[in-house]
Amino acid sequence: MTYAAYFESRRDEQLNELSDWLKIPSISALSEHKKDVLTAAQWLADTLKKAGLEHIEIHPTEGHPVVYADYLHAPGKPTVLVYGHYDVQPVDPLNLWTTPPFEPNIRDGKLYARGATDDKGQVFMHIKALEAILKEEGTLPVNIKLCIEGEEEIGSVHLPPFLEAHKDLLVADAVLVSDTALLERGRPAICTGLRGLCSMEVEVTTASTDLHSGTYGGAVPNALHALVSLLSSLHDDKGRIAVDGFYEGVPELSQVMREEFAKQGIDEEKIREGLGLSALYGEEGYTFVERVGARPTLELNGVYGGFQGEGTKTVIPKQAHAKITCRLVGDQNPQHILDAIEAHLQSHIQPGAKVHVRQVEKAFAFNSDPSNAFLQLAADAYGKVYGTRALFTKDGGSIPIMESFSRILKAPVVLMGFGLNDENLHAPDEHFNLENFDKGLLTIVEFLKSAGTAELAAE
Amino acid sequence: MTYAAYFESRRDEQLNELSDWLKIPSISALSEHKKDVLTAAQWLADTLKKAGLEHIEIHPTEGHPVVYADYLHAPGKPTVLVYGHYDVQPVDPLNLWTTPPFEPNIRDGKLYARGATDDKGQVFMHIKALEAILKEEGTLPVNIKLCIEGEEEIGSVHLPPFLEAHKDLLVADAVLVSDTALLERGRPAICTGLRGLCSMEVEVTTASTDLHSGTYGGAVPNALHALVSLLSSLHDDKGRIAVDGFYEGVPELSQVMREEFAKQGIDEEKIREGLGLSALYGEEGYTFVERVGARPTLELNGVYGGFQGEGTKTVIPKQAHAKITCRLVGDQNPQHILDAIEAHLQSHIQPGAKVHVRQVEKAFAFNSDPSNAFLQLAADAYGKVYGTRALFTKDGGSIPIMESFSRILKAPVVLMGFGLNDENLHAPDEHFNLENFDKGLLTIVEFLKSAGTAELAAE
Repeated sequence: MTYAAYFESRRDEQLNELSDWLKIPSISALSEHKKDVLTAAQWLADTLKKAGLEHIEIHPTEGHPVVYADYLHAPGKPTVLVYGHYDVQPVDPLNLWTTPPFEPNIRDGKLYARGATDDKGQVFMHIKALEAILKEEGTLPVNIKLCIEGEEEIGSVHLPPFLEAHKDLLVADAVLVSDTALLERGRPAICTGLRGLCSMEVEVTTASTDLHSGTYGGAVPNALHALVSLLSSLHDDKGRIAVDGFYEGVPELSQVMREEFAKQGIDEEKIREGLGLSALYGEEGYTFVERVGARPTLELNGVYGGFQGEGTKTVIPKQAHAKITCRLVGDQNPQHILDAIEAHLQSHIQPGAKVHVRQVEKAFAFNSDPSNAFLQLAADAYGKVYGTRALFTKDGGSIPIMESFSRILKAPVVLMGFGLNDENLHAPDEHFNLENFDKGLLTIVEFLKSAGTAELAAE
Repeated sequence: MTYAAYFESRRDEQLNELSDWLKIPSISALSEHKKDVLTAAQWLADTLKKAGLEHIEIHPTEGHPVVYADYLHAPGKPTVLVYGHYDVQPVDPLNLWTTPPFEPNIRDGKLYARGATDDKGQVFMHIKALEAILKEEGTLPVNIKLCIEGEEEIGSVHLPPFLEAHKDLLVADAVLVSDTALLERGRPAICTGLRGLCSMEVEVTTASTDLHSGTYGGAVPNALHALVSLLSSLHDDKGRIAVDGFYEGVPELSQVMREEFAKQGIDEEKIREGLGLSALYGEEGYTFVERVGARPTLELNGVYGGFQGEGTKTVIPKQAHAKITCRLVGDQNPQHILDAIEAHLQSHIQPGAKVHVRQVEKAFAFNSDPSNAFLQLAADAYGKVYGTRALFTKDGGSIPIMESFSRILKAPVVLMGFGLNDENLHAPDEHFNLENFDKGLLTIVEFLKSAGTAELAAE
């Protein structure tokens, strides 16, 4: 039986199985879902066992657990470590979902659910690809380890110490990850660069109580005024980040790199229209692809304070909040960036207001070398299934742990993604195009088989 | 029996009765409390009846009803129309209340509850004062009408048309209102000026969906960035409102007026300390009393957009919101002000973002003449009870309907308030100092009796 026939005959059954996983609201950011995250880890462990993997273990951490499994019966062959995550993003605003986020629903060849593409759907493909080879051939062409975590959406806080502590267990010749996207439908891509990420929560406080705007309005500081003025000072009017030292470690874009980015042939007008925007907006002097792939950002992800209910409330709020994340590139040091922003905020705060900052995530940017043999084999595997070889690209997203994997395990990281950029990851109506579910299964099988036969001794 | 003895003997019973009213969450701004607002109106009507008032009627409006009652048995004597409101402000943030807002609680001689001072507590005093005179003397020294509305906290939207339609019913020689404050404990004041009020809701939108900050961050507009930049542009760095045309109709502060304000002897350092502020803040070149009493404001009462939950969400929000109110002085036209702000917002919005404005309240500022006989009698009445005659002041708050009363009924408005400025009206832990409940009852009785005997024919 060909693998294509194998997967086709089991498609409905496998999608049902994936749906069971997607039904578990494993939102790592919200403490009320701690139990659900654990349930999703247990589901994963059970499914790995059924697939034929061995040494399955749910490793507790100080946060959510890491699920490990392996199958080490290919002596002399390379060892491939599959990484992914079983936690998902929060789902609000809930009212913008067409069908509820944790009731998976297939429409138009797309599976809609929180986690469908990021990342349960993609992790699930690896399990099913391994199960298929085991069923069809009785063994695997390479040694396989899986390390699937539950804290990717909150910055993988506890994974680096886990990697350090289990270096011997996890040692591998390559790390294989499916958590990125094709360039567009039918055009596979292997991402060789990811932006770093750092985040902070900002609180501005003024008086000891909310005040009536009639009694005090115009004569006391307003926490919201202080906050919007502060946040507004973080960018200049050319879209550039106005924080001293922010651009330290950001590589200048060479002409060669600009030409490389241009090859992706991105149609900015099409993107603008697809997003329903009257105009794109960003740092002056860069194209869309350059802004996302090679420039750092400072984004406001949430701002709130004062009255949010229906109608009017003539209140002067005593506190206001903001959530900020930065995407980092090159050698930007996340700790330095957070410190620089904090210093900016402290020095720009209005008289009578105080600002308190809580630093949260800190992850360096990640870059890999496209000439590495595993990356070349991965590009070939895509070529066999998709009919077009994968391009090597740079992605604007962050998988904070990639830099840790390449540093701690000293192995090349192959970002073999099967998502699409318009699949609403982190937004309402997240979905996964099942065309790439089908092709992804085959691509993973192709890659593992080629890795088992290629001469990789020199790596 | 003296009135002092009368009220003392009934104090507990009357406070229990007031508490029953305060337990009804008549929040006019929130539609889910529509029924509670009606219940509070019915409670008021029943209590007016028990007090001996006549012609009690709950007049429906397109919003919340107006409660009317009268007692017209003093031919040849003046007619005094008592105005107040039985609706209250919203209560969030609920967690900052020491005891729940709708479970009245007396601590340290203060009655804590939403509406305790603004305005149920003060309206209740009028009812009890009238009841007392009726019980003790069998009739009232003047003709009395009461007009108590349920929409003051949402801008008295339906009261002006009600006044127009019922001009004949409501005709009076003076309008008596208790919804303002003493200057400070033991220093009564009659407010002869109130700021106007206008309000708007602002919505900024960008893409048709929330976007992932990895995939798009740095290359698309962020609704929160657009909003904070927009809101920040509304003030300059001297605390002055930077909207073209905003100060049209604002009278310059004469040296005489500045001296009048200075007479209040406000200790700014004491205010700063009492509010727990590191510094006061406002328009450069004005004192605290001038800023509140004679200068207009533009305040952010609420700002919100994006992720507000626990943890981090790397989202680029597609929409963001603000609630804005302005306090107006002099001849500022609320419609012109709203239009000027809207034009400012439209002309300052970032590329790729759109701003939508919903104009809500529109009320002119109000000023009355301290030389009027009713105002003079009121100042005397305070003098008899408090031992010190009331000062004539200007207040920073707004009772939007005052301007309508004086214009439509063509009667002087006597703002005989018994609150204190630190009673957290519109904030958590609103309360009413019972010392002023006790003295207020006597002051109202004094005023009504003097109005019944004085020569007022010339008014």
